[in-house]
Amino acid sequence: MGVMRIGHVSVKVMDVEAAMKHYVNVVGMDVTHRDSDGTTYLKCWDEWDKYSVVLIPSDRAMLHHIAYKVETEADLDVLGKRVRDAGVEVTEVPAGQLPFCGRSVRFRLPSAQTMYLYAQKEFLGKDVGVKNPDPWPDTKHGIGAHWLDHCLILGELDPEKGINRVEETFRLLTDALDFHLSERIMAGPNYSVMAGAFMFRSCKPHDIAIVGAPTNGFHHLSFFLDDWKDVLLAGDILSKNRTRIELLPSRHGITRGETVYFYDPSGIRNETFAGLGYQAYPDMPVITWTEDELARAIFYTSREWVESFSTAYIPV
Amino acid sequence: MGVMRIGHVSVKVMDVEAAMKHYVNVVGMDVTHRDSDGTTYLKCWDEWDKYSVVLIPSDRAMLHHIAYKVETEADLDVLGKRVRDAGVEVTEVPAGQLPFCGRSVRFRLPSAQTMYLYAQKEFLGKDVGVKNPDPWPDTKHGIGAHWLDHCLILGELDPEKGINRVEETFRLLTDALDFHLSERIMAGPNYSVMAGAFMFRSCKPHDIAIVGAPTNGFHHLSFFLDDWKDVLLAGDILSKNRTRIELLPSRHGITRGETVYFYDPSGIRNETFAGLGYQAYPDMPVITWTEDELARAIFYTSREWVESFSTAYIPV
Amino acid sequence: MGVMRIGHVSVKVMDVEAAMKHYVNVVGMDVTHRDSDGTTYLKCWDEWDKYSVVLIPSDRAMLHHIAYKVETEADLDVLGKRVRDAGVEVTEVPAGQLPFCGRSVRFRLPSAQTMYLYAQKEFLGKDVGVKNPDPWPDTKHGIGAHWLDHCLILGELDPEKGINRVEETFRLLTDALDFHLSERIMAGPNYSVMAGAFMFRSCKPHDIAIVGAPTNGFHHLSFFLDDWKDVLLAGDILSKNRTRIELLPSRHGITRGETVYFYDPSGIRNETFAGLGYQAYPDMPVITWTEDELARAIFYTSREWVESFSTAYIPV
Amino acid sequence: MGVMRIGHVSVKVMDVEAAMKHYVNVVGMDVTHRDSDGTTYLKCWDEWDKYSVVLIPSDRAMLHHIAYKVETEADLDVLGKRVRDAGVEVTEVPAGQLPFCGRSVRFRLPSAQTMYLYAQKEFLGKDVGVKNPDPWPDTKHGIGAHWLDHCLILGELDPEKGINRVEETFRLLTDALDFHLSERIMAGPNYSVMAGAFMFRSCKPHDIAIVGAPTNGFHHLSFFLDDWKDVLLAGDILSKNRTRIELLPSRHGITRGETVYFYDPSGIRNETFAGLGYQAYPDMPVITWTEDELARAIFYTSREWVESFSTAYIPV
Repeated sequence: MGVMRIGHVSVKVMDVEAAMKHYVNVVGMDVTHRDSDGTTYLKCWDEWDKYSVVLIPSDRAMLHHIAYKVETEADLDVLGKRVRDAGVEVTEVPAGQLPFCGRSVRFRLPSAQTMYLYAQKEFLGKDVGVKNPDPWPDTKHGIGAHWLDHCLILGELDPEKGINRVEETFRLLTDALDFHLSERIMAGPNYSVMAGAFMFRSCKPHDIAIVGAPTNGFHHLSFFLDDWKDVLLAGDILSKNRTRIELLPSRHGITRGETVYFYDPSGIRNETFAGLGYQAYPDMPVITWTEDELARAIFYTSREWVESFSTAYIPV
Repeated sequence: MGVMRIGHVSVKVMDVEAAMKHYVNVVGMDVTHRDSDGTTYLKCWDEWDKYSVVLIPSDRAMLHHIAYKVETEADLDVLGKRVRDAGVEVTEVPAGQLPFCGRSVRFRLPSAQTMYLYAQKEFLGKDVGVKNPDPWPDTKHGIGAHWLDHCLILGELDPEKGINRVEETFRLLTDALDFHLSERIMAGPNYSVMAGAFMFRSCKPHDIAIVGAPTNGFHHLSFFLDDWKDVLLAGDILSKNRTRIELLPSRHGITRGETVYFYDPSGIRNETFAGLGYQAYPDMPVITWTEDELARAIFYTSREWVESFSTAYIPV
Repeated sequence: MGVMRIGHVSVKVMDVEAAMKHYVNVVGMDVTHRDSDGTTYLKCWDEWDKYSVVLIPSDRAMLHHIAYKVETEADLDVLGKRVRDAGVEVTEVPAGQLPFCGRSVRFRLPSAQTMYLYAQKEFLGKDVGVKNPDPWPDTKHGIGAHWLDHCLILGELDPEKGINRVEETFRLLTDALDFHLSERIMAGPNYSVMAGAFMFRSCKPHDIAIVGAPTNGFHHLSFFLDDWKDVLLAGDILSKNRTRIELLPSRHGITRGETVYFYDPSGIRNETFAGLGYQAYPDMPVITWTEDELARAIFYTSREWVESFSTAYIPV
Repeated sequence: MGVMRIGHVSVKVMDVEAAMKHYVNVVGMDVTHRDSDGTTYLKCWDEWDKYSVVLIPSDRAMLHHIAYKVETEADLDVLGKRVRDAGVEVTEVPAGQLPFCGRSVRFRLPSAQTMYLYAQKEFLGKDVGVKNPDPWPDTKHGIGAHWLDHCLILGELDPEKGINRVEETFRLLTDALDFHLSERIMAGPNYSVMAGAFMFRSCKPHDIAIVGAPTNGFHHLSFFLDDWKDVLLAGDILSKNRTRIELLPSRHGITRGETVYFYDPSGIRNETFAGLGYQAYPDMPVITWTEDELARAIFYTSREWVESFSTAYIPV
């Protein structure tokens, strides 16, 4: 009961045709619906719900909202109340307003991202079916990502002004929505300031993460691949498509993930990553990364900070 | 809340020194405790609780019990009551009787295996620590399994006599303990008989599985590896140690797992497998394998039944 | 100068359409020519000459011939003379008789296989081209084998009758054609009988191998894959195509190769294998496998002899 | 007959103890000899000759010489004469002057590197032995490189002044030493200037490469790994040892190699790379990379030039 997983990320993009081609040809998703205004819904071959990415035509790149799926309708009421009790305004959203979904609740995280919870979305099924299925479909294309895995959001962090949206959002997600903390980044005097929080509801190292930044924002959406070999092939496919790569294949210290970062045509950062990393459970001891090891935490292989990681992100 | 994961498997072995060497040198576990009678407790480097395998000296190989860890003490009461309400006798076990654990509840599954639930076990920590950790420890040895991942038990299945312990155990695990069904094997007329059930509480394709057999039994315990390359290296290490291999590296249809099977010195079947396979959630559509595709379900790569899979197992 | 590599294998097959589908859809080759009688020529995407496999319609499966490419026209004269000097009848074959090839020389190995040497074959080019090429073509399909890598032939071995075609063919290949020995299997008293020889002209562990058998024959043709992950995917593709697999993914002791064996529709054994294994040079110390370790030599992972390896092969 | 492979690279290093630790603990070599002045000889576990890297104590990092092994003593005379006939001064070096080697010939390439050819070096054997060997030794440590694979040297290139040491060295290596060209980089008007040449004597994509630079120099020595997974693990080991990484795991366009670059403690660039890439033969069509695609040629995955590749190298 409660939040199961990330359901979808909805972003505004500047050239929706170019964006669609990217998520189809490069990431390997399929278009499952298009609105008359060009808004495009896509899913991965290993997902069963109607969509996990929504592309909305716009004149700037920005996050529209993130949405997490809960297990039952009742969860919406329970969790909505808990968010409201935490002092956050919650809007009850009727069925259908979140396209192809049942009723939902909407609120803004302390770090300003709009978040929906919903319990029901139109079912399409995995591309391999449910009867004596093959492990992967012959129609797999591009990078062939399995599923939207998680997103990383940014929270304003200014200890001198006493602002720490990272910690506030962490508190809301863990207290009201029962997310568990797997890893955290601690900064400042005696490493007492929470500068990053990686949280899970499933058993993956993270289903959502928040890291400190000068302003609230949206950092990346991440897709799952089978293993490190698929990260190499993802790199090949990115190169063939002349996609802009930000970080070459390498390992994260946080989550142990095997990763490659790149940008969609609107400059929205994508990650495709592989490796279970580890299996996270509520009783797993929380891992702490101290600020002095931050580059190693994020960029374990190189231990060198990639400058654009701090500066390139989209507003919310 | 509820069951989190498999906690340990306790088996009786015929030569405990030989068994210990196997689980240390081949599987890659570490001994964390030995009783004066030779009973040996081991953990994997990526586990944090005191042990996940117990080896009890005996004159025959058999299952002693399986144990699953629940999230809270309160879960023991709730789940114990639900098992009892399902008509199964439940014993309250005081702290310490399950070694290094808090209080627990014990009952027998319809398929006769003894199962414990416990909420607390002595904490040792992962070998990589919790502060700025490396992704793997330099002390990794042998196959270097990450963790005990799941077990597969056998339930008596004799449709003509109206006996189906597979379905009974499936009912208990799902109804009383909230396990979810990921995949099932259906046999008999119109594929109406449940001959296998793969169930999860985490988000892995299975945390426990039960398959039909002439008698109740215990089929294998399985350890997690990073990826398919580690399955190759596991094969090399098995060969160097002259360990008896039952199934060469290959893929399962069920769970998509990348696997190799072998025996410990007492003839207890081990699996080391890799590949997340897929991420299972309560709303994932259940996958059905029909009896006519059974060899492909278990042995996807070869599609040929390995005879010993049906005949070699230990009693419970 | 001298022999460069295996050029092609020409086999008689019983259902040439079925065979063609196998080598195209499963192995991943492309048809580059068909004769009016159905004889079919195929190449791999990473090969540049017109064909490496020839399928000849017939009423039984058998080897037609194997062919190796030499570096220069002059090599044909030099090597032809050396084979003749070794007491083997050599036929000068005019250009075009070996389809799409220049002149060639033909002879029978002591183990009875017909072997051609040729210096020129029609050039088609790799599928990725020669100008700023991608590492692999988007048209890759099926298993996507890189190239025909080697073949393994069988030589009659009956020490009691004083027959050892393995050693005779080994002598001819090394003495007259300058093949180098990388590994050998020694059997009989004091391991004094050569029962297998693995030989190279390139720097791969083998370009041709011969092993003892009750009769002369042809054991398998082998295609190269990138790495162990591709062996897993090859297994998946074999399973999807319901191709008969003989040996699951595993490692060879000899050559260290990572391998899977299967049959084409006429029962001709194919191997797809990966892993450089090692780089062989003329000064590499020869590796010796003794008969008592033969199962481990061939089937390193399992150390169990696969019976059909001894019994299933085609005549020459 | 002729050149077989790279034999060793001899470099001057600033802190020979630190360098030794690097090549042992990080690269995974073993020390096979030390001179009284600290000069250190190392080999990889899969090599059989006494050493492939020599570290000479010095106050600056620079190349001492590169050495290639030929097949026979007679090759030394033939090839020495051909080099001399090409107008290059050749010195006959008595046995033992090149440590643990037989007689050799020495000359300077047009690009100024000192090159030795030798036919004999003291034999030690692979760590796995030659009788029924395992595929890898239990004593493997660090990255566990298989062998020194190739080196890349730099030749002064200044078309305006009519200086092209790249082409001159290419001419000498191909004309006098029978190296074959696998790939080339063409720059300048109509891409008529040879700015890079990748050459082989074995069947690997390159045994030596030369690329244009402002001055003659030495760019890197490269070690072979099994596959892409080993590149990930190499990255982990580099990170654990706090070794400075220059290029994260990625693919080369040229050679298709899967690579990671880093520096030894003296700033000498090392590569560990995997992937056969392709099998090169004298009749393979030469691949041409045009200057406008140079970043993609070297850094296929990112297509972005790594500045230090042009600026960081050691003198010769």
